[in-house]
Amino acid sequence: MNKRKRLIYVPLGGAGEIGMNMYLYGYGFPGAEDFILVDVGVSFPNIETTPGVDLIMPETGFVEKNHDRLHGIFITHAHEDHIGALGYLFPKIKAAVYCRKFTAAIATKKMNKAGQDEGKISIVETYPKKISAGPFKISFLPVSHSIPEASSLVIDTPIGRILHTGDFKIDKTPVLGDPFNERLFEQISKTGILALVCDSTNVFSTRHGRSESSIKEALYDLIQSQKGLIVATTFASNIARVLTLAQCAHNAGRQVLVLGRAMQEMIATAKSAGILERFPNSVSINQMSEISRSNLFIIATGSQGEKRAASAQLAREKYMNVMLKDEDCFLFSSKTIPGNELAVSEVINNLIAKGISVFDDNSDLYHVSGHANRPDLEKLHKICKPKIVIPMHGENRHLREHYNIVRAMGLNSIVVTNGCVLQIMKNGKAIITEEIFSGLQYLDGRNLIGFQDGVIKTRLKLASQGHVSVSVLLEEGKLLRNGIWVKSKGLPLVGKELLDLEFMIEDAIVDGLSRESYHLTADDQILESDVQRIVNKICKKSLYKRPVTTIFINRLE
Amino acid sequence: MNKRKRLIYVPLGGAGEIGMNMYLYGYGFPGAEDFILVDVGVSFPNIETTPGVDLIMPETGFVEKNHDRLHGIFITHAHEDHIGALGYLFPKIKAAVYCRKFTAAIATKKMNKAGQDEGKISIVETYPKKISAGPFKISFLPVSHSIPEASSLVIDTPIGRILHTGDFKIDKTPVLGDPFNERLFEQISKTGILALVCDSTNVFSTRHGRSESSIKEALYDLIQSQKGLIVATTFASNIARVLTLAQCAHNAGRQVLVLGRAMQEMIATAKSAGILERFPNSVSINQMSEISRSNLFIIATGSQGEKRAASAQLAREKYMNVMLKDEDCFLFSSKTIPGNELAVSEVINNLIAKGISVFDDNSDLYHVSGHANRPDLEKLHKICKPKIVIPMHGENRHLREHYNIVRAMGLNSIVVTNGCVLQIMKNGKAIITEEIFSGLQYLDGRNLIGFQDGVIKTRLKLASQGHVSVSVLLEEGKLLRNGIWVKSKGLPLVGKELLDLEFMIEDAIVDGLSRESYHLTADDQILESDVQRIVNKICKKSLYKRPVTTIFINRLE
Repeated sequence: MNKRKRLIYVPLGGAGEIGMNMYLYGYGFPGAEDFILVDVGVSFPNIETTPGVDLIMPETGFVEKNHDRLHGIFITHAHEDHIGALGYLFPKIKAAVYCRKFTAAIATKKMNKAGQDEGKISIVETYPKKISAGPFKISFLPVSHSIPEASSLVIDTPIGRILHTGDFKIDKTPVLGDPFNERLFEQISKTGILALVCDSTNVFSTRHGRSESSIKEALYDLIQSQKGLIVATTFASNIARVLTLAQCAHNAGRQVLVLGRAMQEMIATAKSAGILERFPNSVSINQMSEISRSNLFIIATGSQGEKRAASAQLAREKYMNVMLKDEDCFLFSSKTIPGNELAVSEVINNLIAKGISVFDDNSDLYHVSGHANRPDLEKLHKICKPKIVIPMHGENRHLREHYNIVRAMGLNSIVVTNGCVLQIMKNGKAIITEEIFSGLQYLDGRNLIGFQDGVIKTRLKLASQGHVSVSVLLEEGKLLRNGIWVKSKGLPLVGKELLDLEFMIEDAIVDGLSRESYHLTADDQILESDVQRIVNKICKKSLYKRPVTTIFINRLE
Repeated sequence: MNKRKRLIYVPLGGAGEIGMNMYLYGYGFPGAEDFILVDVGVSFPNIETTPGVDLIMPETGFVEKNHDRLHGIFITHAHEDHIGALGYLFPKIKAAVYCRKFTAAIATKKMNKAGQDEGKISIVETYPKKISAGPFKISFLPVSHSIPEASSLVIDTPIGRILHTGDFKIDKTPVLGDPFNERLFEQISKTGILALVCDSTNVFSTRHGRSESSIKEALYDLIQSQKGLIVATTFASNIARVLTLAQCAHNAGRQVLVLGRAMQEMIATAKSAGILERFPNSVSINQMSEISRSNLFIIATGSQGEKRAASAQLAREKYMNVMLKDEDCFLFSSKTIPGNELAVSEVINNLIAKGISVFDDNSDLYHVSGHANRPDLEKLHKICKPKIVIPMHGENRHLREHYNIVRAMGLNSIVVTNGCVLQIMKNGKAIITEEIFSGLQYLDGRNLIGFQDGVIKTRLKLASQGHVSVSVLLEEGKLLRNGIWVKSKGLPLVGKELLDLEFMIEDAIVDGLSRESYHLTADDQILESDVQRIVNKICKKSLYKRPVTTIFINRLE
């Protein structure tokens, strides 16, 4: 074998979408590389493309096949799109899991929930501490983001250093956790960065990012100005924001009540990880009756309009005995993730119909993003001076725009999407050498199913076309009297006369199968396709639809 | 009867959403008012709430009940959310239809498509020409919007004048059709406006609206700068934009090709209505091979990411022999309507994956809105000086914000949503006196179905939970051998072992019904619910799901 060892980067999720981050790094002879995996994230389903699905994850066939050469799973931070798949995929890709303390607390919950061994999780210390994993040495570099203890990874490979940013922003006053430490990034860059694998999600935001602490004053002023009850929502995992909200409320003389399980759990986890010591005392739902509305401040789950979360329920009716009314105020200290616009609008409209004042992210006053904007990305590129920048975490358009920015700075770059195998050379040149099978898998109830299994396609057809079941009863090759029985689901009565579709189909099948010319074949398949054809014909004519159909042919001897 | 005649305003659609405009005005003794109807619009379904549905329309039970006192249907302009339901609802609410010439051309198509009598449509002349309809006199006042021949309605009632704006913007150089004529609005306001019923959709846009003609230069510059093929998409009905695009392309030395049926039809309709005489000669798909890419400009349907429209198809693969490639350019001269973000993103990402440059509405350079922004609304309020402003066409939040603005100007206002009956007094006071049944109806294939019929609910359940059919065969009260047969749709294989769900359910039913203790009852309903219970139990345990189930119990004598 005269082939040489090589360094490869293989995104499995996150390079072509926002969410579902999962990246492989490999080093070794082609086809025999040793690997580490960075992040095991999920993305979230929608009825339009993935009805009934609970979670979406990257396809992991390639990792499974090579899992004896997988030397570790490194989790940059505890957002669902970086850690959410851990419990479900661990049985398939077993390897040591490395992350920082707060992330480990979340990871432990994921592993326990899935019945996996939490002992596989190691809590790591940060840079300059290194973990050896196969040919790689990995170090967790603290970085600011919208969740505590986010990290970039310094990955030392036999041919050079890779900086994998993870999600990050440049925030020197982040309220909670590690500020962006420019000197640390300069320090790790001193010996030269081969490749900067870099977050792209905010590449279209053209102004410098703002610090988490910059919104404190506006939040305080808003709270101070209100006379009724105030409810604020944000991402439960944005502990710094939750803390800021609680502190501003406290300073304005209000008591804090936390509503929604996800929020309560996240606060408890943060407290137990020792990173939320300054959180003001909060009151319980039972103490609420003793507090006047003007002295109460509720922090609630549901910033994305989730139907079952506290915010949506408060907007519709009462929730846990809390009922909003005229003169109360509702604050979205969050941005709406694309795809959730209608759900969030519905919450807002319901609140406004009740006369409640709503403040949302349109004002830009009450929320800052956790990702680096374009000028911040440029700044990091300048600090690191890598031989190549590989845009990561973003849709095609984000990756492409990031590429354009890097090229405009005179640096080398390449767009790499899920499933591409990128070979990175020592001089910073890089080529896509092959593509592996990549795709999605779905958590569907208790099962992991492939995105090409056809299950989802059938569900989408059921949703738009409905279902027709037909029972055919034959005795000695003859159709029995009342031997045709049709039941439909999700289909309307027909026309102005409101005719019953089921009778129409039954009559047509009886007609079709009773015609003298029709030979009641002994072949069930032919008979079934004849019945199917009649169902299709009636449904097309009466409904303009083509339902999913189930046909039973019962033959009595 | 000592009750007095009254003037009422009853929004049936559009007051609580963007889309689906339909407003009733009535005058007479309570419960015996004479009515006119303004607009008969649709809104568009989505899989999340209305799977399989083709169009959404307001519930019309109240109009149907009073239809002998309905004296006319007045259509302000030809956008689908103002005219789209005409053909489908006309049979239920028959009345004379009044609109301007271009609108009438579209209305005629709607009536013909639905097999209704196009002779019911009258083409009207504009203000000061008046149409008498019951106690009302109505005049069409030309106004600028993003479609030709849009009109506000001047509705003279026995107690005062109402100005119903319809959709409008203040555009004095609209490229095509009527500019906003401030003097005309002053003139009709001279004798006093009782109520201004006013478009609210752009109330959150805080800057003055821009004229349609303001984007010409940027469009021309963009076209001029490109070397490859250019594709532009916009709303087909935005004839002025289509014209501007074509003219800019023509001036830049490019030939124009129109792709997509809706766009071609709309251009043909505009030409036949005599309002598109200046449209440059366009080429056909067959002539395309004779034109170099750098000399071609395509105007295509699909600005909202619609999967089957030309734009989405061009982004995925080739469409009608047109194949986009590296160095080509794609322009969205349109905004993304809330709810369509993901579909539009998909088109953009597909284009960018092919190396095509995409220009979208984020830049604000290549699109202007057709609605009046906040300062424009304030301007109209000042011109008209109505006794009351009634915010119309918008979600709750738009109506409420519009109300706030009006109140801040010191004018009277009230928020009225679909189904509310607003009585307007001569002095401009107004109260909601009652609520009528309001809601939605769906065009579903060939049928109109009610939103509470349960059909859609079942479809949503089918989509998320799948379907199980069970055939049970009994002879003389005994379960036949092989008498249980189960077929599922939209459900996965079970667990890591990929067990067959159908066999699992069959075994469980046979077990359940064969148990000695089980009495094979003669009551089909009881037997069916027992079978249902077994299906539910297996599906819950194996799938965490509760499928829609169809059960046949066949008994042989």
